[in-house]
Order: sequence, then C-alpha cells, then structure tokens
Amino acid sequence: MKMLINVPETVVADALRGMAAAHPDLAVDVENRVIVRRDAPVAGQVALVSGGGSGHEPLHGGFVGPGMLSAACPGEVFTSPVPDQMVRAAAAVDSGAGVLFVVKNYTGDVLNFDMAAELAEDEGVQVAKVLVNDDVAVTDSLFTAGRRGTGATLFVEKLAGAAAAEGRPLEQVESIARRVNENSRSFGVALSAVTTPAKGSPTFDLPAGELELGIGIHGEPGRERRPMMTSGEIADFAVNAILEDMSPHNPVLVLVNGMGATPLLELYGFNAEVQRVLAERGVAVVRTLVGNYVTSLDMAGASVTLCQVDEDMLRLWDAPVRTPALRWGM
Amino acid sequence: MKMLINVPETVVADALRGMAAAHPDLAVDVENRVIVRRDAPVAGQVALVSGGGSGHEPLHGGFVGPGMLSAACPGEVFTSPVPDQMVRAAAAVDSGAGVLFVVKNYTGDVLNFDMAAELAEDEGVQVAKVLVNDDVAVTDSLFTAGRRGTGATLFVEKLAGAAAAEGRPLEQVESIARRVNENSRSFGVALSAVTTPAKGSPTFDLPAGELELGIGIHGEPGRERRPMMTSGEIADFAVNAILEDMSPHNPVLVLVNGMGATPLLELYGFNAEVQRVLAERGVAVVRTLVGNYVTSLDMAGASVTLCQVDEDMLRLWDAPVRTPALRWGM
Repeated sequence: MKMLINVPETVVADALRGMAAAHPDLAVDVENRVIVRRDAPVAGQVALVSGGGSGHEPLHGGFVGPGMLSAACPGEVFTSPVPDQMVRAAAAVDSGAGVLFVVKNYTGDVLNFDMAAELAEDEGVQVAKVLVNDDVAVTDSLFTAGRRGTGATLFVEKLAGAAAAEGRPLEQVESIARRVNENSRSFGVALSAVTTPAKGSPTFDLPAGELELGIGIHGEPGRERRPMMTSGEIADFAVNAILEDMSPHNPVLVLVNGMGATPLLELYGFNAEVQRVLAERGVAVVRTLVGNYVTSLDMAGASVTLCQVDEDMLRLWDAPVRTPALRWGM
Repeated sequence: MKMLINVPETVVADALRGMAAAHPDLAVDVENRVIVRRDAPVAGQVALVSGGGSGHEPLHGGFVGPGMLSAACPGEVFTSPVPDQMVRAAAAVDSGAGVLFVVKNYTGDVLNFDMAAELAEDEGVQVAKVLVNDDVAVTDSLFTAGRRGTGATLFVEKLAGAAAAEGRPLEQVESIARRVNENSRSFGVALSAVTTPAKGSPTFDLPAGELELGIGIHGEPGRERRPMMTSGEIADFAVNAILEDMSPHNPVLVLVNGMGATPLLELYGFNAEVQRVLAERGVAVVRTLVGNYVTSLDMAGASVTLCQVDEDMLRLWDAPVRTPALRWGM
C-alpha cells in the first residue's frame, strides 16, 4: 500500500510540523506532541484537553481553538498518547478555572488520562473527566471494555467547548459534556480495511463484495459482515441500530462522517438516505454536518452520529468556533 | 470497487439531496442541478457562477455562499454541466451588476460556458468569463487544449468572490479573477487510480510501487511514472515543477490539496515537506490551506497550488466567507 509519507516512524512528527506551518493560531510542540491554542490559558475559562491515537484526523488536533478544545495530545497511530503529554497540556492551558479531559473509551486512553489526572492534580490543576462511549455497534471490543467512543466526541468537544467559552464553571462544563455523550449514539460501516503506516498492509481482510456493519475507528470488527448493500440499505441499518438504543424526544444534531477514503459526493448521497430514514422514523433534525471528521486513515466507509439536543445544547452547537476543522461565527 | 451509493445513475441527484438537507443556506434545485445561495441575487453585487463535472467535491457546490460563489452547476461525474444549467444559475443570481463565469480549462466546460454566456446575454445578463488553467504538468491533455484547471480554482473563486462582496464592478472582479489565475500554478501526483461510479473499476492502471507525477483531477495521465517516492521527494518534484514556471517575487498562498483518499495525517506531513522546499527556494508563505478541496473521487494523492499575492489579494483571501467547505469571519 503506497502512502504519502517519508518513513512510518516520523508520520506523526511530520504531520505536526505540517500543522504548525498551516495554523499559526496553534502552538504545536512537535517534540512533546502537544497542540495548544496559542492564546491559552484564557483567564476565567475552563480548559478542555483531549487526545487519542493519531489516524483519526482532524480529530483531535483539528478541533483545537476558541470555542472548542484548548489542547490536544496525539499519540502514535492508533495508540494512546502518554500521561506526560496530557499533564503538559493541562499545565499549558489551565487558567486556574480547571481542566476537563475528554476521553474516548479505549482501554489505553482511559488508563493514561486517569493517571494524567492524578499527576495534574498533584501539580494543583483541578481536573474533571468525561468518557465518550457512543458507539452502539458492540458492547465490548478489541480495545474497549464497554462501548467505543467515536463520532460523539466531536459533539462533546464542541458543546462543552462552547460552554467553557461562555465562562461556565468546571462542574457545569463537565455536566454539559456528560449530557452530550448520554444523548449521543453512533454506528459505522466499513467498505474497505484500514492500512496503518507501520504495518503497510490492510489490518483486516474484507472480501470484495462485502461490507462490515458496526466497524470501529481502528478497523475493529463490528457486528457482522454482509454482501454489499446500497446507500439506502446502509442508512436504514445504521439509523435503526441507533434508534433501537435511543428514542429521541428532542430534535437531533446529525453527523454523517466519512471514515477517510469515501468521496464527499458519496457522503452527501448517504446523508440524503440518513435524512430519509430519520424522517420516516419521525425524528426531527435541527443541524447536519457532513464530512471527514472522525476518520480511520484510508478506510472507506461512513458513520452516523445522532445527538439529541435541548435549546441550551443547540445554542452551544451554534456558538462561534475557530479551529482548523470546524469554524464559524468568527 | 465498493461504493456508498444506491445506483450509479442517481449519484449526483442523491448528493444534491444530501447537500440540500445539510445546508439550509443553499437553495438546491435537484432536478435542474443548480446550487444557489439562498439570498441571491444580492443587490449591487456582481455574481459568480462556476461549475464542472461532479466528483471533485467540495468544488464547486461546497464553495457557494457569501464571499465566494453565487451559484454552482454540477455535471455528471467527470462530465461538463450543460449550458441550460449555467443560464438558469446566471438568471437566478444576477442582480443587474453582471455575472462572472469561472471556467476550468476543459474542452467541454469551455464550450458549454461559452454557449451559456451567449444565451444569458441574449436574456439581458451581462457576462464575463475567466478561464482557470493553472496545472503546469502538461501542455495539452486528454480533455484539454492548453493547461488544465485544478487547485487554483479555489483561489480564483475565493478572491473574486470577496471582490464581488465588496461591491466592485464586473470588470474589476473579472480582473482580479484573471490576476489570481495568472499568478497561480499547480502540480499533482496520484498514488492510486480513480474509480467512477459508472465504470466501477479503476479508470487507469497504476502498478503497485509506482506513482504518477503530474496527474489530472480526472485521472488523466501526467508527465511520467516513477517508482514510489517519499513525501519529501514528491514535495521537491512538485514545488520545483511549479517554480520552473513561475518565480514569485511576492509571498504565496499555499494549497496542499488531497485528491480524495489520502488521509489528512499524510496531507499535513506532505505540507511540512512542501514548506521545507519553499523555504529552501526562498519563497515566502503567507497563508496555507491543507485538506480535500479539489478532489478526484477516491484517488489517493495530492496536489500543490501556489498563488502569488499582493496586499489587495491577501486581503481578499482573508475576507469573510461562509460556504460549506470554506468558512471564516462570519
């Protein structure tokens, strides 16, 4: 498998150098692997720190900036960052109002963020944590006890980031983050396997003519394989899997997310089918985002995330944000 | 090749339905295939209309909105839109201040926009045209007399759109567009072939272990094939090919553009190498954009576009824009 890289060993460092060059609003510490908004710490505001394995770009580094994350810690590809990165990030962004760690539910991330929280608190930083576990596909998985954290991470980071930007205290920012996660569900499908730079060949085998329903963002196995389905059939399956687990009484934010290699033309077409199913099921949609946001390197496929919102949450979604990957209102 | 579609025949219409659902600021006429900003026509402002074959998303529909295009006309995949779409778009967006057609240099597009300009003028719309032909890779190509129009289209649409939003008259908006094109050069590489929905298999054959230097955005042949190169070697080749054709005395805007299937992690790493070469060659960079903007469906690879700017042009780049794919300042 050909890649646009130098050598596998420098993929993350190279990407960080490229981010630094493209985004002067971010302070990118290539050596220590921490991406911080340049104006941090922001007086009186709770700071948000997230991170995880690389390979899911723009998550998380692309979500650093006013109105969203204060800092992100990228690990090696599909590998948790280490506590030292998170402690360093927390120290860089804490204004004294405290730090919220946004943690996707993977065993390595959970352990490392737990350890980092203890270390940061030893250094006098007040830390709260929220676990993102929105993926309804499987109960446990290869890298997870409990549900995986996937597309809802974007909603958690956006809405909690907006709450922090409003000056809400740590306990309220944490509460919003928790509420977003509790009201979010995701389901993903893969049309092709993912290839990591280190391995150089597909990490699993997906026969021609089949798709994997319920895939994870590291190519972890899903619920089942089936002969290839149409976009409409996939939308039916994904949305129904979500609605079996959550019955929204409020309107939803919709994320139709590409896994990396699926063209935007197809993602928009898939969105049309997702919206059809939601309309058939009587679910009201208030906002829709379509694109590559929580990816899995070069995997083809897509995921659907629904986030049920009340008026406050919708206002937080609409609030101004200025990051490399999500930007509006400023 | 598996795709997230229903049937090849409805791919464009399905995508337009999905765009309509995601972007309430756009009026999407699915039947007639015209995407118009909902508040058009805007009194006193020149309108910009572009279009081309589908499969290059977000180009052009993703660039419709305040500060950029007034309307876009998507054709079938890799096929020019027809004059009727362009005439309809021009009529919908013309405020009386005239319309600028932004035309990528492909034979079908040129012919159809020419015909549309005549028809629109017969209906009383004042029309100017600018041809985008920035790709230094080849002189003529499969679909082109002269150079192909690729990544510079984004710069032309952004800067001319900003000039129109400032209320500049048609002749000045046209002049800016022309100046952007004249000061822009691009070079692209492919690591894999592209598969169209209608064909269902790769449109050309790229052996394992080789890349194509100077690829077009429809998978048209480039300059040459070589054994796979590193990101740094590719950056050297691409930037040098551009600088053989243009010696910027002013600073440049840089677009490091993904062809569709190359992960953002790799694009950022490639950007680091592009910036290295530019620094070595003494070219000053003022802004850098990294991501999938002018794509070729599921093709892996990337292109580099440089656009030399004076102060006025830089101000137009920084001006507020609100479209699905480019958005800042509002």
